[in-house]
Amino acid sequence: MKPVYFDNAATTPIRSEVIDAMTKVMQSHFGNPSSSHSFGRGSKALVEKSRKAIASHFNVSAGEIIFTSGGTEADNLVLRSAVKDLGVRQIITSKIEHHAVLHTVQHLQKEFKIEVSHVNLDEKGGIDFNHLESLLQTNEKCLVSLMHVNNEIGNILDLKRTADLCKANNALFHSDAVQSIGHYKMDLKDIPVDFLAASAHKFHGPKGVGFAFIRKNTGLKSLIIGGEQERGLRAGTESVHNIVGLDEALKMAYQNIEEEKQYVEDLKHYFIERIKAEIPQVIFNGCSSDFEKSTYTLVNVCLPVLPEKSAMLLFQLDLKGIACSKGSACQSGSSQNSHVLSEILSDKDLLKPSIRFSFGIYNTKEEVDYVINVLSDFVAKSKTSS
Amino acid sequence: MKPVYFDNAATTPIRSEVIDAMTKVMQSHFGNPSSSHSFGRGSKALVEKSRKAIASHFNVSAGEIIFTSGGTEADNLVLRSAVKDLGVRQIITSKIEHHAVLHTVQHLQKEFKIEVSHVNLDEKGGIDFNHLESLLQTNEKCLVSLMHVNNEIGNILDLKRTADLCKANNALFHSDAVQSIGHYKMDLKDIPVDFLAASAHKFHGPKGVGFAFIRKNTGLKSLIIGGEQERGLRAGTESVHNIVGLDEALKMAYQNIEEEKQYVEDLKHYFIERIKAEIPQVIFNGCSSDFEKSTYTLVNVCLPVLPEKSAMLLFQLDLKGIACSKGSACQSGSSQNSHVLSEILSDKDLLKPSIRFSFGIYNTKEEVDYVINVLSDFVAKSKTSS
Repeated sequence: MKPVYFDNAATTPIRSEVIDAMTKVMQSHFGNPSSSHSFGRGSKALVEKSRKAIASHFNVSAGEIIFTSGGTEADNLVLRSAVKDLGVRQIITSKIEHHAVLHTVQHLQKEFKIEVSHVNLDEKGGIDFNHLESLLQTNEKCLVSLMHVNNEIGNILDLKRTADLCKANNALFHSDAVQSIGHYKMDLKDIPVDFLAASAHKFHGPKGVGFAFIRKNTGLKSLIIGGEQERGLRAGTESVHNIVGLDEALKMAYQNIEEEKQYVEDLKHYFIERIKAEIPQVIFNGCSSDFEKSTYTLVNVCLPVLPEKSAMLLFQLDLKGIACSKGSACQSGSSQNSHVLSEILSDKDLLKPSIRFSFGIYNTKEEVDYVINVLSDFVAKSKTSS
Repeated sequence: MKPVYFDNAATTPIRSEVIDAMTKVMQSHFGNPSSSHSFGRGSKALVEKSRKAIASHFNVSAGEIIFTSGGTEADNLVLRSAVKDLGVRQIITSKIEHHAVLHTVQHLQKEFKIEVSHVNLDEKGGIDFNHLESLLQTNEKCLVSLMHVNNEIGNILDLKRTADLCKANNALFHSDAVQSIGHYKMDLKDIPVDFLAASAHKFHGPKGVGFAFIRKNTGLKSLIIGGEQERGLRAGTESVHNIVGLDEALKMAYQNIEEEKQYVEDLKHYFIERIKAEIPQVIFNGCSSDFEKSTYTLVNVCLPVLPEKSAMLLFQLDLKGIACSKGSACQSGSSQNSHVLSEILSDKDLLKPSIRFSFGIYNTKEEVDYVINVLSDFVAKSKTSS
């Protein structure tokens, strides 16, 4: 069996068409987009063409797309400037955000003495909208930062409902949409979100490029200073080949989104059916087995394995060539518990191994069969020997 | 005549070997370096191999190389954290720094109420070391930020002398080395500089990647927050293909540095001789005609052309397929005078067009001939018709 890559929420293989587009650009267009001569104008045209194409997917204007080095930088740009430049004094967020939001908010709280509130979550990690509404009854200038699709448990936030609620309460709304852009279509004329963060490598694009959607006239300012690139919102020579790769990857993601979504959703469905049949005591973390409330790309399972066998399970999976994730990729090298699962699992379940399997267009049902066999073998053996 | 690219200080063509290395990595290694499974470890190994190779060129340890999205981000990372986290209360810099330093320092001055001093320059843009030494007689915690090679006029700072002086006065020393790394070798065991900024696209590498050299135990902290990448100094999934491209470009730059340096220096020499012969009234800005005191890659000339003909000259050069720069690339789209030339030219000379021609390994003497002919034709016509 070839290695099985079930960690598409950590990163995805680049589509060959994207690699080709990037290689071509590196060969043909090396000018600095800030140069006014023909070499520079050629590169500038590529960047602006990509910006326009990307904006069109979301029904926004090109000037509202600001290229960054990735989702983390986009989150940092939005959150820091909202506090520093827009006078935000309160941030409402949740305890299950990605570290790019969670840690940045903690830093801002310390540095600027702002108030930070965490919205209550139900036992599946769902947002308590009544609590959110009550938190919004504040006299402080307020920003809400809630992610669209949770990277660990797949929960989907109702973006429109949240944005409408924020708008009605004069709060700014930022959403880390790193796990949803390229996987879900969205019309930002209809959803009054102020800011979004996106990352190309989560939808078969290159690593090291992403964008912030920054709605016009919000007054946001640059995090990285020293040049007039990106309308003064992000200094530094543009990574032209990466931007073209991002554009190409997003175009391809949305071109066949219905078929590809169906294909990946079927894999997730098959995985859930098979694991339920083989390991009936499996628990699905968060909403990840609910096809309405969670993304079609991932499932997070808590396995009936003794705590002392947990490390062995991960080791076994790796040995058998199965790539998956304990919590998010950022934590998979660490021995700490996932901050997301800590919020929603019982102390008892937290001791058992929880694993995220995330699927993509290059995966197959045969791979699901293989992984389920390895898992059920392990669980069976771990029971008899325990 | 094919278009002539004499704007290598703005950016350089990527070497085909670098493109090949990047393409190969995108095809073969897509894992997230933060993932602990085999796909992740493969990518992590590439990043760490590149870090080690890059560090070895400068005789430093791998942990002192922090990958960023480019030189501008590296400058921002160092300067902001020096003030925010290291308690720097005074920055000594010059008025001819790149905007990545100049504007960032201005922002920090406003935001943190620090003191900013500008070291005196001589009429060629050279640093007044006596003045620098007197500025260093301060009780405040101090950082000196002076660029190694000036991007507009090519002046070379004596890095060792400056670093020794800073060290003797207990000041931290940062140098924007974007125009020198890949063009000059440096042994950082011998030069006690604390921080450097570098950018791959200035030495035939990809755009959107660079690094900060951050000497061990300085205590610098992250600008971009939200992940433990780069030893906690720079959050965000690593741009693996760009990092590999940076490594390959730097390796190639230093592999044949003596021959390539000689080749480019000969072009500059030839350009200077030819322009002096054809346009005797030419003025060389800064030290750019002095082969000891300026980089071998560029020359900045002030031409005997009436102010009202300046715009026409740039237009003509573009029309004839000649890519060069008025000031730096970042300003070439703007009508403002170069902040560097404003510091060193007389009001009279400031009215005349000054142009930077910057050379690289892919340029030829035939191109120099062509450009000199276009320039001298224009100067001759502009005289007779004036």
